Amino acid sequence: MSKRTEQAAGPRTAGPETTGATPATPQTSLELSRRRLLGTVGAAGAAGLVVGGAGAAIGVSATEPEQDAAKSVTTIGSTEVAFRPARARHQAGITTPLQATGHLVAFDLAPGAGRKEAAALLRRWSRTAEELMAGRAPAADTGVALDAGPSSLTVTFGFGHSFFGRTGLTARRPVQLDPLPDFSADALDPKRSNGDLWVQIGADDALVAFHALRALQKDAADSARLRWQMNGFNRTPGATARPMTARNLMGQLDGTNNPKPSDKDFDERIFVGRDAGQEWMRGGSYAVVRRIRMLLDDWEKRSRHEQERVIGRRKDDGAPLTGGSETTPMRLDATGPDGLPVIPSNAHARIAAPESNQGAAMLRRPFSFHDGYREDGAPDAGLLFVCWQADPLRAFTQVQRKLDRGDALSPFLRHEASGLFAVPPAAEPGGYVGRPLLEG
Amino acid sequence: MSKRTEQAAGPRTAGPETTGATPATPQTSLELSRRRLLGTVGAAGAAGLVVGGAGAAIGVSATEPEQDAAKSVTTIGSTEVAFRPARARHQAGITTPLQATGHLVAFDLAPGAGRKEAAALLRRWSRTAEELMAGRAPAADTGVALDAGPSSLTVTFGFGHSFFGRTGLTARRPVQLDPLPDFSADALDPKRSNGDLWVQIGADDALVAFHALRALQKDAADSARLRWQMNGFNRTPGATARPMTARNLMGQLDGTNNPKPSDKDFDERIFVGRDAGQEWMRGGSYAVVRRIRMLLDDWEKRSRHEQERVIGRRKDDGAPLTGGSETTPMRLDATGPDGLPVIPSNAHARIAAPESNQGAAMLRRPFSFHDGYREDGAPDAGLLFVCWQADPLRAFTQVQRKLDRGDALSPFLRHEASGLFAVPPAAEPGGYVGRPLLEG
Repeated sequence: MSKRTEQAAGPRTAGPETTGATPATPQTSLELSRRRLLGTVGAAGAAGLVVGGAGAAIGVSATEPEQDAAKSVTTIGSTEVAFRPARARHQAGITTPLQATGHLVAFDLAPGAGRKEAAALLRRWSRTAEELMAGRAPAADTGVALDAGPSSLTVTFGFGHSFFGRTGLTARRPVQLDPLPDFSADALDPKRSNGDLWVQIGADDALVAFHALRALQKDAADSARLRWQMNGFNRTPGATARPMTARNLMGQLDGTNNPKPSDKDFDERIFVGRDAGQEWMRGGSYAVVRRIRMLLDDWEKRSRHEQERVIGRRKDDGAPLTGGSETTPMRLDATGPDGLPVIPSNAHARIAAPESNQGAAMLRRPFSFHDGYREDGAPDAGLLFVCWQADPLRAFTQVQRKLDRGDALSPFLRHEASGLFAVPPAAEPGGYVGRPLLEG
Repeated sequence: MSKRTEQAAGPRTAGPETTGATPATPQTSLELSRRRLLGTVGAAGAAGLVVGGAGAAIGVSATEPEQDAAKSVTTIGSTEVAFRPARARHQAGITTPLQATGHLVAFDLAPGAGRKEAAALLRRWSRTAEELMAGRAPAADTGVALDAGPSSLTVTFGFGHSFFGRTGLTARRPVQLDPLPDFSADALDPKRSNGDLWVQIGADDALVAFHALRALQKDAADSARLRWQMNGFNRTPGATARPMTARNLMGQLDGTNNPKPSDKDFDERIFVGRDAGQEWMRGGSYAVVRRIRMLLDDWEKRSRHEQERVIGRRKDDGAPLTGGSETTPMRLDATGPDGLPVIPSNAHARIAAPESNQGAAMLRRPFSFHDGYREDGAPDAGLLFVCWQADPLRAFTQVQRKLDRGDALSPFLRHEASGLFAVPPAAEPGGYVGRPLLEG
């Protein structure tokens, strides 16, 4: 095993020349990503280790990219995301590029389990997550991930509203965890919503992700019980010739207008600052999780023209209907020959835009899901929407309230489950995620 | 778009030096695989096109492998499997290397639909499959696969027992489609079993696979209705440093003893020969499909030592308990100091071995599945077992009967759904899959 430490952009960022399209998620330039060779992979693997950095865009000077080096298939398995990102306080799995497979899981503390058991569980979970993310097997391992590298595995832990009551910590519960308001498009299943504890698992290999899910479930042992669990997916690295914004199951580019780490106010919008009230959350973020089923049978009956007017962007390249390319700003005031707005007044992209929401911005980092077909013959498929922000009230809730009142896309969506979680900063060396809360 | 035609091994076969471990599926050396560049991918992509051939092993001389060329990540998307494999009569998706994502789907002909409608449907399906496998979008496309290459997409069509009655073709129904016998470990759900028509979709990108599923479902229109549908997965290409036999969710290497195209009798065991009775099936194969749930909570409680005695092979490298490496033949007659067989008499690998089954051999090409958790808290996960053979009675049925009588693995498995399908040879140019049956 050889290891090397380098400053790197996300696994899918080949170099500055590929950044024409906005990536679905920002580069993990703030995270120190270690990469590892698995056994003997020869010249191809070695070349694949060299990934150009795009960190300069956010003021961190990047290592010199070796632009002509081929990125080998073998780097998919060997790519490792740091459990404790260097130069950042937040956990992995927030600014990490989208992975091909994801599991979202909620646990409830078992009857009788309180703060002490929760602390012990978070300690076990943190240790297991760190081992797995480094590609090491935990004790008494199932062997499911044997042979594979860490495959960009990330494990991210969060606390739900109910966690604080269970652990006697209501006094330290952030106001940001106050329940989301009801929305008219909601048809929420409480059994698949909320929960004391939330875990997000992502990896570029499905067996690596499943292995992590089972290992964490085993760690839960008698302290916590699985409440709900959802499976999702995104593009496989290399399925497109260059890194691109991801498409969702409606065929739309999804994430075009995401804030980027290069934005001056990225950190303050996405991560909890020093003045937010709960010091233990400083550097953390709040995740809103929604299972959004898409009424694909209805959607697919609409013409491409109709679909584009619902969204306000072109389907093929994501450019606004007012022209340009995916990254061209929308001209929200542009009108057509008929005097009507070119981007319709109820177009999804208009209503969700920061300009329409007092600058509200959240970092969307979803997975698609497909759980087969329902009894009524419709696909049980859509988006496991996960968004990140420093303050849900000023981000998700602000935007969703607006969408709920007149978004052209809403008739094609059903919000079926919902969760809101406080995701504390990464563990300190020797510590575990949530320690400043649980032992503070 | 540039195209080139070459004789190639499977997408995951980098060259002769990587063939030390038996791949999970044989190389597609018999298939002429065209590869395509997506837009401008530069030197990395171009280098990735060159894949060493392993065809020599089956008597087809391979192109000279360029062993030092890096296999680029971008080849994952650009790899194309031919809808009409050259030098082979069978459809794609049988000897094609395992893909990362799979959908298994069964349809029933709609009330009133018969032979004519079935023929028109197979014509539409064949056209759509050929377009999609070449990375082209069908008419009125949903756009879900836009940007991605074909990503090794395969679409494979089969006919169930009931198809022949529905189309007035019972006289031409092969005896090989006679229903499988009942097995004591079966707990089959008829709603998720059998069906008039079966489609297997595989791709290395989940959106490409989902896109194909929806396109084929749209083609079915009023002629056929979805009966059941299952989702599966395997390793992502590049998750391991070199091609390896796949692991299943029990952590076992699964497919070690698969017949290889280099075996002298491979074709006669897997594909229908000239003397099998139904000329329209010549060059085709029979697929047995089983949804096998694994009782993972029970399995994971056993020690590695116990698990290895259940299987008869070592967990880490798949070597027989009698020693050697994964490819070393089992020494079934070896006994230990206690006088008992080293490979226990009820070990799975012993009972399933061709030596124990009059040489019976089938080509296993499964996907793992994970559909979340059941009401009882157990994972709804296991294997979408798909196996291929010229004669199910002498292959799957022979072996499963033996396993059913005393296999040590059976207590950890539940067979929950079952299907048996006649998978005709590939379409002739200008024709469609099944035409010799439907228009013969």
